Amino acid sequence: MIVVSDNLQITHGAVDRAVKEMDPAPIRELVRQCVAAGADAVDINSGPLSRDPEKKMAFLVEAVQSITDLPVLLDTTNPKAMEAGLQVSKSRTIINGFSLEPAKLERILPLAGKYDADIIGYLLYPNSHVPADESERLNVAVELFGAFQRAGVDRERLIIDPIVAPVMWEDGNRQDMEILSVIRTLPDLLGFPVRTIAGISNLTTGHGPLDKKLRLERTYLPMLAAAGLSMALMNVFHTESVMTVRAFNALAGDRIFTWAGW
Amino acid sequence: MIVVSDNLQITHGAVDRAVKEMDPAPIRELVRQCVAAGADAVDINSGPLSRDPEKKMAFLVEAVQSITDLPVLLDTTNPKAMEAGLQVSKSRTIINGFSLEPAKLERILPLAGKYDADIIGYLLYPNSHVPADESERLNVAVELFGAFQRAGVDRERLIIDPIVAPVMWEDGNRQDMEILSVIRTLPDLLGFPVRTIAGISNLTTGHGPLDKKLRLERTYLPMLAAAGLSMALMNVFHTESVMTVRAFNALAGDRIFTWAGW
Repeated sequence: MIVVSDNLQITHGAVDRAVKEMDPAPIRELVRQCVAAGADAVDINSGPLSRDPEKKMAFLVEAVQSITDLPVLLDTTNPKAMEAGLQVSKSRTIINGFSLEPAKLERILPLAGKYDADIIGYLLYPNSHVPADESERLNVAVELFGAFQRAGVDRERLIIDPIVAPVMWEDGNRQDMEILSVIRTLPDLLGFPVRTIAGISNLTTGHGPLDKKLRLERTYLPMLAAAGLSMALMNVFHTESVMTVRAFNALAGDRIFTWAGW
Repeated sequence: MIVVSDNLQITHGAVDRAVKEMDPAPIRELVRQCVAAGADAVDINSGPLSRDPEKKMAFLVEAVQSITDLPVLLDTTNPKAMEAGLQVSKSRTIINGFSLEPAKLERILPLAGKYDADIIGYLLYPNSHVPADESERLNVAVELFGAFQRAGVDRERLIIDPIVAPVMWEDGNRQDMEILSVIRTLPDLLGFPVRTIAGISNLTTGHGPLDKKLRLERTYLPMLAAAGLSMALMNVFHTESVMTVRAFNALAGDRIFTWAGW
């Protein structure tokens, strides 16, 4: 399982200011820290970027790629920002992402074909509501894959996000347990070894004691990984969580186990 | 998943001395600590007890049960010690355990019927060798269940131990990943919701850095739990490992999730 940092978010004041001032230094410093913390890829969560979307996304991608050639995920709902990011990116680029929402099917999904890029598909209803249970999630996956194929994109480009539910939702923990089964079922259901990604920080969104949030995250990560999750989108400054992913990879890898190198 | 302490072992000098001197105080103190650390049951690993097996096992069981009425596991290869323990035990008692080894089939397994007790069956060959892979483990499980049924014991009494492999074995980590699938498959294979137990300390037996051993243990526990493991036989003084089991139970439980109570 690979680790994708979710730390670069425009909702963080320092990032927002850096984008407004077109000052790459704070972005570079943050990305440097994410790479040092063990990120295998960097999610660039720019938000919708209502003003100057092309210029701002290009700035963000260039700032990130002045530090690292790791893959980047372009995390925006704005198709103009998305396309600008795809045009300037020099490393592997993942579109994050589309769903059954008509605007996304029409304006985001086609970019995967146009730029021959990986793309994340969220298991959400067209109105962006979260499916209520496992069978709803699997039904949405089938519909999403149908829309994806109609767009003519190579199926190997698809990465599915089953949408981790906050445990504080009334049935959040039940949904999160069902997501394990969704991840295990998807390759058989869709007929190819589809990759999956999950937003780990979603799990503990809301109020709660930090020590238990971190412990819950560390506990859920190996469960997702054992179910076959390909990518964990997570706060890489949660050091023990990153270490947990490394421990999983040492245990689950094809190579003979060794205590060194993780 | 419930936590069974593996801390009470005759191989520990203080326990060995206490048994030789028939001094219950050190046993009581150890059990008090295990209960405080979160044990849901106590494994009494007395070893073979070649001298005075009945007297010594009775002493151990009574020492433990002077502190707690938690279930106990009688962990000995000596049928005389096992029977003595079953006779004196006042709480729920689990025989730990039998295998396809002829001596165990003949002298340990019948005690489950005679005392109407739960019994752990190890997925080991008659010569006590560990099966090499998943299909061998499942074949042994079918044979073990056959022997169990021929002994006329109620099938609900059976608890299967798939035998965790030390990661330091050449293919230990591969085996440990396959064990997840074994645990998931057993109920379908045997046709009833058979319970399972795993010896967690086996995972990191041998040389290795303690921080990584603990991290690996904390990582493997949720994977086993998500696969359906019923009981983790483990060192309950590994506080974060016990906390991990609690986090799993909060996440996987039938009740609405809450930050309190774990």
